[in-house]
Amino acid sequence: MKILLLHSDYIEYEVKKKTRLAEPFEGKGERVDEALVVFISVEKGDTEDTALKAVEEISEVAKKVNAEKVVLYPYAHLSSNLADPETAVKLLKFMEEKLSSSFEVHRSPFGWYKAFKISCKGHPLSELSREIKGEDIEVTQALR
Amino acid sequence: MKILLLHSDYIEYEVKKKTRLAEPFEGKGERVDEALVVFISVEKGDTEDTALKAVEEISEVAKKVNAEKVVLYPYAHLSSNLADPETAVKLLKFMEEKLSSSFEVHRSPFGWYKAFKISCKGHPLSELSREIKGEDIEVTQALR
Ligand SMILES: [Mg+2]
Ligand SMILES: [Mg+2]
Repeated sequence: MKILLLHSDYIEYEVKKKTRLAEPFEGKGERVDEALVVFISVEKGDTEDTALKAVEEISEVAKKVNAEKVVLYPYAHLSSNLADPETAVKLLKFMEEKLSSSFEVHRSPFGWYKAFKISCKGHPLSELSREIKGEDIEVTQALR
Repeated sequence: MKILLLHSDYIEYEVKKKTRLAEPFEGKGERVDEALVVFISVEKGDTEDTALKAVEEISEVAKKVNAEKVVLYPYAHLSSNLADPETAVKLLKFMEEKLSSSFEVHRSPFGWYKAFKISCKGHPLSELSREIKGEDIEVTQALR
């Protein structure tokens, strides 16, 4: 699993068009202010265990930057080794559920073309990325 | 080299703080409307040949979406195998120069913490990613 965490003034998205992998979604989109936005590529081999580690990482960063809201935003462009859509949606929902005990959680729909606006705050902790593999979390090179 | 191409209504960025890898930069930032914004991780082993292939890809996408402006935005979070900063800046400047013959090109400074706002249009070609390796271009899985 690869995640990119942006501490943001806001994110706003609007669904535009289904892909063939789209999960059912009735809404048009939403805007969330003052959130930790997490772009996520679920990868082949990821399990609930991987997802739990991601939840821990996300929680830790959200607490550090004092974000009370988390937006889970499926993002296929962080990996060239993507999980199948069913697994991806299952793990995203699992993460949503786990994070909901500590944060206000929003999840954008999987498999839709979406227009989006985001404003990233720009402080040193406002852009972080993580690669989470079976047993360990790899802090990407940018952050060492 | 990994690139993420976002066809955008606008991008706006503001430098906030140097990292230890920062290139010299006197400005505060800028706003560019109606642009193809290219987030770029230059990777170990990338050469001018790699950069030229990236320029071809970027040009092709810019033409397809009718973008007259290109913004090169160094982005460390697309790879865990980053080139050294000198090589990265050298290849980014090389790409800037090559693209300038066909587009209005903007390049944001390397190695600075930056706040940014972006608005991605959301049509099917408005978000694409490419992995460019020595001899070939890998279209990331999301796009197959
Ligand atoms: Mg604010
Ligand atoms: Mg516009």
